[in-house]
Amino acid sequence: MAAAPGAERDIDPEGLAAARPLLTDLYQATMALGYWRAGRAQDVAEFELFFRCCPFGGAFALAAGLRDCVRFLRAFRLRDADVQFLASVLPPDTEPAFFAHLRALDCSGVTVRALPEGSLAFPGVPLLQVSGPLLVVQLLETPLLCLVSYASLVATNAARLRLIAGPEKRLLEMGLRRAQGPDGGLTASTYSYLGGFDSSSNVLAGQLRGVPVAGTLAHSFVTSFSGTEVPPDPMLAPAAGEGPRVDLAGRVEVWLEAVCAHLGLGVQEPHRGERVAFVAYALAFPRAFQGLLDSYSMRRSGLPNFLAVALALGELGYQAVGVRLDSGDLLQQAREVRGVFRTAAAQFQVPWLESLPIAVSNNIDEEQLARLAQEGSEVDVIGIGTSLVTCPRQPALGCVYKLVAVGGQPRMKLTEDTEKQTLPGSKAAFRLLDSDGSLLLDLLQLAEELPPQAGQELRVWPRGAQKPRAVRPAHVESLLQLWVQQGQLCEPLPSLAESRAFAQLSLSRLSPAHKWLESPELYQVALSEQLQALVDRMRAGGPP
Amino acid sequence: MAAAPGAERDIDPEGLAAARPLLTDLYQATMALGYWRAGRAQDVAEFELFFRCCPFGGAFALAAGLRDCVRFLRAFRLRDADVQFLASVLPPDTEPAFFAHLRALDCSGVTVRALPEGSLAFPGVPLLQVSGPLLVVQLLETPLLCLVSYASLVATNAARLRLIAGPEKRLLEMGLRRAQGPDGGLTASTYSYLGGFDSSSNVLAGQLRGVPVAGTLAHSFVTSFSGTEVPPDPMLAPAAGEGPRVDLAGRVEVWLEAVCAHLGLGVQEPHRGERVAFVAYALAFPRAFQGLLDSYSMRRSGLPNFLAVALALGELGYQAVGVRLDSGDLLQQAREVRGVFRTAAAQFQVPWLESLPIAVSNNIDEEQLARLAQEGSEVDVIGIGTSLVTCPRQPALGCVYKLVAVGGQPRMKLTEDTEKQTLPGSKAAFRLLDSDGSLLLDLLQLAEELPPQAGQELRVWPRGAQKPRAVRPAHVESLLQLWVQQGQLCEPLPSLAESRAFAQLSLSRLSPAHKWLESPELYQVALSEQLQALVDRMRAGGPP
Repeated sequence: MAAAPGAERDIDPEGLAAARPLLTDLYQATMALGYWRAGRAQDVAEFELFFRCCPFGGAFALAAGLRDCVRFLRAFRLRDADVQFLASVLPPDTEPAFFAHLRALDCSGVTVRALPEGSLAFPGVPLLQVSGPLLVVQLLETPLLCLVSYASLVATNAARLRLIAGPEKRLLEMGLRRAQGPDGGLTASTYSYLGGFDSSSNVLAGQLRGVPVAGTLAHSFVTSFSGTEVPPDPMLAPAAGEGPRVDLAGRVEVWLEAVCAHLGLGVQEPHRGERVAFVAYALAFPRAFQGLLDSYSMRRSGLPNFLAVALALGELGYQAVGVRLDSGDLLQQAREVRGVFRTAAAQFQVPWLESLPIAVSNNIDEEQLARLAQEGSEVDVIGIGTSLVTCPRQPALGCVYKLVAVGGQPRMKLTEDTEKQTLPGSKAAFRLLDSDGSLLLDLLQLAEELPPQAGQELRVWPRGAQKPRAVRPAHVESLLQLWVQQGQLCEPLPSLAESRAFAQLSLSRLSPAHKWLESPELYQVALSEQLQALVDRMRAGGPP
Repeated sequence: MAAAPGAERDIDPEGLAAARPLLTDLYQATMALGYWRAGRAQDVAEFELFFRCCPFGGAFALAAGLRDCVRFLRAFRLRDADVQFLASVLPPDTEPAFFAHLRALDCSGVTVRALPEGSLAFPGVPLLQVSGPLLVVQLLETPLLCLVSYASLVATNAARLRLIAGPEKRLLEMGLRRAQGPDGGLTASTYSYLGGFDSSSNVLAGQLRGVPVAGTLAHSFVTSFSGTEVPPDPMLAPAAGEGPRVDLAGRVEVWLEAVCAHLGLGVQEPHRGERVAFVAYALAFPRAFQGLLDSYSMRRSGLPNFLAVALALGELGYQAVGVRLDSGDLLQQAREVRGVFRTAAAQFQVPWLESLPIAVSNNIDEEQLARLAQEGSEVDVIGIGTSLVTCPRQPALGCVYKLVAVGGQPRMKLTEDTEKQTLPGSKAAFRLLDSDGSLLLDLLQLAEELPPQAGQELRVWPRGAQKPRAVRPAHVESLLQLWVQQGQLCEPLPSLAESRAFAQLSLSRLSPAHKWLESPELYQVALSEQLQALVDRMRAGGPP
């Protein structure tokens, strides 16, 4: 099978080919025609992208996905083939001038304010404010939702897992194979890192997004060896580079006898194929040898084989990097393995063996993670795939993108389902803080209002409350930052690692009760008196 | 913001840029080096891709994703930048010859047998058998899992929803904004269609995959109109093209009085902005006017405004295409709306109004779908997003890719966790059928065994059973088809629509008890006596 023509050039250096203008719902295109026919394509409109409830029964979310949105806006342009496809699904008598308008579209009239990535986000507070020509900003709805919702969801999920694990455990994301296709996996890896994971198994996330990548070997590597294989070159030079090369496989057999005697095992018990596999891996990675212990029997095969190879490597000055357990009671096995490491370290006088990292994986969820991270656990590295990437407790964040103003006039969806009513008007958002730096509440107000002043009392309407409350912030932070103005990027986006650090900083300022993963105290989002009055007027059917 | 350079050419005409060779777990690359150093890169290995449990508590799954796998294999080639990135994460002293080997890799040695897309799939029966040089087929693990698992999961979810809805309801997939990023959305749309949905809102799925697309308008279109807007051209010609053009907005106001009188509403009650929006949409889509009824009040605004516009269009010979409800009790509202359609059809003598399609959406899950599809429901079209795309009941299929043979010798993972033990050896798979065409069981046997013969009794070992059973199939079907041989596509893949039809045909042959969505009867998968004997020998630690 020959490679496709053109495979050599990088067809998609930024990994954004999947996000293209037609990655949208058809109704965006039909509405575009409706706006255009109504002479409203250029009306200045503003949309807000927000969520209505925090995910996973928690009281916070992390904002993420902005960098992908900016990439998308930058490349937004309908090609001839795109316009031709739209023509094939729109009425045949649609004016050519409409398609010419589409063909010429770009985001040069679009302005985006947004929470910086890694910010704490709360219900109703815009993650993105997008303004520009009505037709264009309408077309952006679906792709922006697609780029922000899952990114924020998985970042929040990662942050929860990090809260459970504590700051010391190393957390590895390994969910690529459980994601919704290729890009789902890339998004998951990127934003799990932002949310607090240390690394990912996903090589593409390393290449395209700079996420640290990690990984050693799978069961197939181990079971691919029957034990009769002869390595082409079994000789290994000492780590320091001086001294003669040594037959590693031969030394392993010598060490195996000592290890089996120490563990009270017969020397025939450890699986020969597994040992040959470990030797092969150690020859390739003498400085990064990890043992995967459970292809046959952890206690009677994987562990003794690992020790024999690790000790033979140790003679040459190489230190193994650890072991991985992938089935059974991981906490209990880690304890056993640590016990054996300790006795073997003493027996064979190799102190580093005692503290070798123990990595675990196997469908770990929040509950199991809490167990693995408990006081006294001997687990050092935890790999999480499915329950991180698929967010099984709530697999969608349910972000929405709602029109709040057209031509400077507020707009509101007044459906009888009050939960789905929107907050009208172009807004500003502030975070009010106490004198100790702790968060008091988030305030939404109309864009034209004066910002709240530190030290001054103001009356606000907590969402859903029947009466206002007074609050006197010691500090006030403006939440929405201008990133894109009339299509121009205003300042460079922070790197992924910077956003990751910002996420941890943001979380550290949130009070513990808001961070409880079950039945947390809800964080307050409030409206200014003017905004509340506008909502009331519009609900009553009056003029804005 | 200028479009990125090169935006004009189609950077990814097949939509496969996200699936590239580095979309893999790092351990595949480290194992590749291990195999290569051990002189085993070219050993002939065979892997099977399968799942262990049917998803969603059901007793079947649909196989899907093969077309994406074939596309991926066809384009598989590491570029210089990919190899350079791998070099940056592998040991610095890795031999250049290894990277030269990677640079030259393609899938010209790879053979793939697979269940045709849309086939019924059961636990342990391979969806894919992949054989070829050990190093390459190992590298394929993660991307193939990524491409098959979610595709099969969402196709199965769609099939379940189709079973609930029955064959008549029109089902629209609209989950792009809830998917795991852009490609997650594309995969969801593609394979929801395969699983039995009628259409998708996702335009890209239409353009790249040929999925029928559908969509009309959102609340933002409605709320963007305040009521003061004046259409540049309010005149509409009759549908037949003959006769004078008519001021549609003017006719709508006339009809509104009649409609309000009929419904007992004041003529001021319907929201003017909503009506102007409907007129604008109708002017753009006179042959495809759909009313979204719940931006303000369905009963007092959306419905009368819709009727006024639909009746004004009707005078000119245009028939509206229906209405959409997006909040509240959808079943009850559909009943009310149908009631009004009937009385209005009689009152205004427009018989087609009576049977106008009623579409609904709003977080519809299996349970709500069952209610909406019940006998006597007036709902015609059902849009499902979140609960289709995210598969909340089980957001990952948990497919695995396991080594079963190397150099013709069977391999088996013998972990103490018996659920994770694998079935060794290169295999064939057959579906045994009764004389009435109903399915008896799926049989796995060693590749070298003679196929079971129709009409002949044979003894088989149902998985997990303690003793064999006798079975006499009236028909025998071979399950695994050769698609790719030594890198060459053996026959064209069926179209997506053909696979969709095949899925419905496959499901129709499965007995109802296996299709129950709760507590179904499990479908039997059995091993031949020879395969069972091989498993027993290998479990006992003997030679294969």
